[in-house]
Amino acid sequence: GTAWGAQLMNNPANPPVGIIMGSQSDWPTMKLAAEILDTLEIPYEARIVSAHRTPDRLWDYGKSAVARGLQVIIAGAGGAAHLPGMMASKTRVPVIGVPIQTRTLSGVDSLYSIVQMPKGFPVATMAIGAAGGANAGLMAAAILALQDPALAKRLDDWRTALSASIPEEPVDD
Amino acid sequence: GTAWGAQLMNNPANPPVGIIMGSQSDWPTMKLAAEILDTLEIPYEARIVSAHRTPDRLWDYGKSAVARGLQVIIAGAGGAAHLPGMMASKTRVPVIGVPIQTRTLSGVDSLYSIVQMPKGFPVATMAIGAAGGANAGLMAAAILALQDPALAKRLDDWRTALSASIPEEPVDD
Amino acid sequence: GTAWGAQLMNNPANPPVGIIMGSQSDWPTMKLAAEILDTLEIPYEARIVSAHRTPDRLWDYGKSAVARGLQVIIAGAGGAAHLPGMMASKTRVPVIGVPIQTRTLSGVDSLYSIVQMPKGFPVATMAIGAAGGANAGLMAAAILALQDPALAKRLDDWRTALSASIPEEPVDD
Amino acid sequence: GTAWGAQLMNNPANPPVGIIMGSQSDWPTMKLAAEILDTLEIPYEARIVSAHRTPDRLWDYGKSAVARGLQVIIAGAGGAAHLPGMMASKTRVPVIGVPIQTRTLSGVDSLYSIVQMPKGFPVATMAIGAAGGANAGLMAAAILALQDPALAKRLDDWRTALSASIPEEPVDD
Amino acid sequence: GTAWGAQLMNNPANPPVGIIMGSQSDWPTMKLAAEILDTLEIPYEARIVSAHRTPDRLWDYGKSAVARGLQVIIAGAGGAAHLPGMMASKTRVPVIGVPIQTRTLSGVDSLYSIVQMPKGFPVATMAIGAAGGANAGLMAAAILALQDPALAKRLDDWRTALSASIPEEPVDD
Amino acid sequence: GTAWGAQLMNNPANPPVGIIMGSQSDWPTMKLAAEILDTLEIPYEARIVSAHRTPDRLWDYGKSAVARGLQVIIAGAGGAAHLPGMMASKTRVPVIGVPIQTRTLSGVDSLYSIVQMPKGFPVATMAIGAAGGANAGLMAAAILALQDPALAKRLDDWRTALSASIPEEPVDD
Amino acid sequence: GTAWGAQLMNNPANPPVGIIMGSQSDWPTMKLAAEILDTLEIPYEARIVSAHRTPDRLWDYGKSAVARGLQVIIAGAGGAAHLPGMMASKTRVPVIGVPIQTRTLSGVDSLYSIVQMPKGFPVATMAIGAAGGANAGLMAAAILALQDPALAKRLDDWRTALSASIPEEPVDD
Amino acid sequence: GTAWGAQLMNNPANPPVGIIMGSQSDWPTMKLAAEILDTLEIPYEARIVSAHRTPDRLWDYGKSAVARGLQVIIAGAGGAAHLPGMMASKTRVPVIGVPIQTRTLSGVDSLYSIVQMPKGFPVATMAIGAAGGANAGLMAAAILALQDPALAKRLDDWRTALSASIPEEPVDD
Repeated sequence: GTAWGAQLMNNPANPPVGIIMGSQSDWPTMKLAAEILDTLEIPYEARIVSAHRTPDRLWDYGKSAVARGLQVIIAGAGGAAHLPGMMASKTRVPVIGVPIQTRTLSGVDSLYSIVQMPKGFPVATMAIGAAGGANAGLMAAAILALQDPALAKRLDDWRTALSASIPEEPVDD
Repeated sequence: GTAWGAQLMNNPANPPVGIIMGSQSDWPTMKLAAEILDTLEIPYEARIVSAHRTPDRLWDYGKSAVARGLQVIIAGAGGAAHLPGMMASKTRVPVIGVPIQTRTLSGVDSLYSIVQMPKGFPVATMAIGAAGGANAGLMAAAILALQDPALAKRLDDWRTALSASIPEEPVDD
Repeated sequence: GTAWGAQLMNNPANPPVGIIMGSQSDWPTMKLAAEILDTLEIPYEARIVSAHRTPDRLWDYGKSAVARGLQVIIAGAGGAAHLPGMMASKTRVPVIGVPIQTRTLSGVDSLYSIVQMPKGFPVATMAIGAAGGANAGLMAAAILALQDPALAKRLDDWRTALSASIPEEPVDD
Repeated sequence: GTAWGAQLMNNPANPPVGIIMGSQSDWPTMKLAAEILDTLEIPYEARIVSAHRTPDRLWDYGKSAVARGLQVIIAGAGGAAHLPGMMASKTRVPVIGVPIQTRTLSGVDSLYSIVQMPKGFPVATMAIGAAGGANAGLMAAAILALQDPALAKRLDDWRTALSASIPEEPVDD
Repeated sequence: GTAWGAQLMNNPANPPVGIIMGSQSDWPTMKLAAEILDTLEIPYEARIVSAHRTPDRLWDYGKSAVARGLQVIIAGAGGAAHLPGMMASKTRVPVIGVPIQTRTLSGVDSLYSIVQMPKGFPVATMAIGAAGGANAGLMAAAILALQDPALAKRLDDWRTALSASIPEEPVDD
Repeated sequence: GTAWGAQLMNNPANPPVGIIMGSQSDWPTMKLAAEILDTLEIPYEARIVSAHRTPDRLWDYGKSAVARGLQVIIAGAGGAAHLPGMMASKTRVPVIGVPIQTRTLSGVDSLYSIVQMPKGFPVATMAIGAAGGANAGLMAAAILALQDPALAKRLDDWRTALSASIPEEPVDD
Repeated sequence: GTAWGAQLMNNPANPPVGIIMGSQSDWPTMKLAAEILDTLEIPYEARIVSAHRTPDRLWDYGKSAVARGLQVIIAGAGGAAHLPGMMASKTRVPVIGVPIQTRTLSGVDSLYSIVQMPKGFPVATMAIGAAGGANAGLMAAAILALQDPALAKRLDDWRTALSASIPEEPVDD
Repeated sequence: GTAWGAQLMNNPANPPVGIIMGSQSDWPTMKLAAEILDTLEIPYEARIVSAHRTPDRLWDYGKSAVARGLQVIIAGAGGAAHLPGMMASKTRVPVIGVPIQTRTLSGVDSLYSIVQMPKGFPVATMAIGAAGGANAGLMAAAILALQDPALAKRLDDWRTALSASIPEEPVDD
């Protein structure tokens, strides 16, 4: 379903949304954000930017974000998850944080590392794991929709369709 | 410092930001968001909207949000904190959630009730307590700055001033 | 065993018990409440009412609960679980809450979102997961038994049978 | 305000509500339930019944509950809080549990000891501490109101008054 | 290895150790205590005594413990685990508590329900799960060894053998 | 009340009970164990034995425990609380552990460090803080009472008096 | 006592130890590290380096650490505490992390943000709060002592004196 | 890949690094430290030293550490994990602690038992589980590199290679 859209929407020259993540292993969660953006026809780029392994990449990404036209950055990381907060310190572009579920602490470590930011550098934190990945895409859409009536319409329709899809009664498997 | 600004910025007819909270007791935290908005010259309104005690008020606020021109809603609540998530279900306007610190569980209950939203209805969750209150104002500013170069400049300046205020060395009291 | 009973007891015109849940995925837990009600011959209806995806359905369900003759509402939800508490804000009919076990936080998020209600709107919270599902049915029965001596007898018998079923000594598999 | 009511409502011969608690030190929390019952004109008795220090008292209370005409038992306890669950094992009268806030674990120990009951013996668990105390009184009222239209009216009025008391806007102290 | 011993040691007329548990499902953990007792040649009985489902059995067991000659009671339970603490309230015979691991909260609920006893009624709490099961047997042995030099010798030998069994270096599988 | 008893019972030549603790700051909690022993006329010694600061003292204490006639060791420690478990590794004399409440983690660190012992070396863990201190004394008494009918009588009386001291009804302050 | 030492040891040209912290408010904790270094006659510098407010300062500090001759960096931070881990990503000089106690989460957020580092970038994490502050100084000393026999002697003496200072018995206040 | 290196580096006569662990079952985690040391050509020895089962082995290892030329000790343990802290009390050689992931509490028990050391005896605590195992090897390397320019070069190269290995974009599986 989304494969074609993903090819279309991903990697344009100046996308409004950047999806960044600490490692390849975060992609199954972050891809859920990408799929929402595909569905809502919002161009984006997806990059691996590790706060610890590629700090200079983080620096460059943050410093050039405004100039490159990024309007929202979605950042996912797990454990001692410093990427979202460090990105928020490098740019005023809104940063949405996705706490990746972890093996030992289930993502409570990721959540605390992302949400407990000091005054000055907010990170818009989403739920741990898959729900958070998808919701990061929707939050980005809601922010962009403020300037884009057509996108606002698509987002409204998506929300209406979600509500309409809920059956009245549960069924046995 | 902010008293004058607060009078000026609060309660305009069609403010871009709505600050809502579950009860009067949340105001000391939510006021920190208002003070940031004052400082950055962003008009707002502050309202008590209790998810449980005034659910119809919540309904009306959410349903009219787009029509009234609200661009960001900042919602604070404590304990079983349903206000931010329920507001997110009623409007596509981005909702920023502030978990109020609580007496028994220190706000972990507030945090989980706000951040763990299911797919479809993101809440941009801030830190528990005071830091979260102030950061909600800054996140609102960052979102609005995407459409307002003058505000972007003020926000950049605020951030620069914050960084410049940090001394090189700690001092004894 | 319960299949026949379920057909008989479920979906009468004016059942005393309403079982509601946030999504189809909650049914395996909530069905345990239905099975208890079947066993005790208490009519009920089972409905999907999502606080976030179908807020108006929640509104209507809550507002009409007294008029429709509902005497107990059993509400299950997971994560940022707002359904039980929001239902408690819309009707004075007693609401029993069932925290669904979650993948990331094992249902502690569900528990805190349901149990930590502010003064004014109690939710009778059950254990996380399967035990809570079954116990919600038993708590509904205990409440209804206050007005129904025959049901009180059936409930007493069920409890006596449970106690009688416990062997004196453990056995190896 | 409630002193007069308390004298009137407390200690009738056959009250519908029994408020029991593990020790005198739980009274400041449990009294909040009593005050709600006073306000709603529901007779009750308040007793100290310690699961560990007076187990026989617990036994007798539970075994005679139905015969004495008790319709709801509100039980508060802290730490390894066994009173609500043990009472639920001794009588089919609905038991509402109030987790008392504790010095070392803030009442999480009380909460887990009360809410995590196995299949067969539900305890209708309230929030930790003061909110849970008051809400226990309201849940008792909601259960009794199912059989008492006049009480249902008083409860509805109490809820309406609560909602009406919420101001539109927060104010500085 | 222990099958023969188990037959020999279990179910004598007046054993010094009683192993009790809330349900058959606790046996895999509690059996580890029995196996230690078998190894150390300490007679015991194993019984299912559910605090909630068979409270009268609990009562009788506790009240007759001293008269029957029980010197140590090992009690295992999970979730809202009331068996060890309630047994401690019914007899002065030392009670060793084993928190059973649970599906939702990993046994933290069991641990808090067992260990956080109020002044007056100590429960000698062991580790959650398997380690706690085996250690309950060893703690019982240590208590009995105070009066039984031959058992003290066997326990010392068991401890010495355990230490001697530890290799100097780890090996790959 | 206990001052005289403390002088009498403390520091005999060969006491059956040793109370050890990691530092002077643990004494307010551990003294509650001493007061129970005084009340029940059980001789004891109280010593500071720090696992980390005086490891050789720990070694000597553990190695000589049996020879010195110690029958129960009560060990209190906070934070990374290694004293009870290390003592259990050095002697087969039963060790009762008291988790001291801590400033940062409320004693959850102490509790986990004490209770989660591996197979082989049980520590009879008490509640965190004051309740655990007093209960350690009672558990020691229960163990010693197995060999001392007069002490068993005093312990029974103490328990009876505790139960008898509980008033029937709560009173306002 | 330490005031004179602090003047002597702090702020030499090329100190082997750098103490950095996120804000002035961390100094009461981090000063405890400085006092240990003073006592052990180890020169150091103390600097405020905020990961979020002064990220470029962090960059420069990390990049020049080896060249400036720093041998150990002690980094303290609270909440979403990114300073220690980000410093570890910028330099191979060993980084010791001190989790500052926080108002809302007691420093569990700081601890998780510091200790849960991914493979590649270890942070030597100390206890939360005051104990961690002092221990960071001691760990730095232990590392430097590997190359400095005189310091090794001073550290051994400090440890010996600590052990010698522990009294044999607790005393009442 | 590492098998040959392991044979070369492990078990020299006087290695600078000692890897110790509480039991064979910790080896899969601790082996990750060994593999890092192999890669960086740092000789080491790997030993099983159980704090509880072989306390005298712990004593001897600690007391002889300086004389044997050990410069870093890496200690892994799980549950009530006393090995790292007890080793730190026996020697001034820096101790790096690795909290082993546990079945019941996911290693939070191990973490608290290792990191929450009192003033005087720091343990350089790593992340729970696999990341912590590998990072312990890297922290040991960073400490040794302070005296060994060739090792510093190898560590710098390892870090550079790690950074260089990170792809720019995530890929689907």
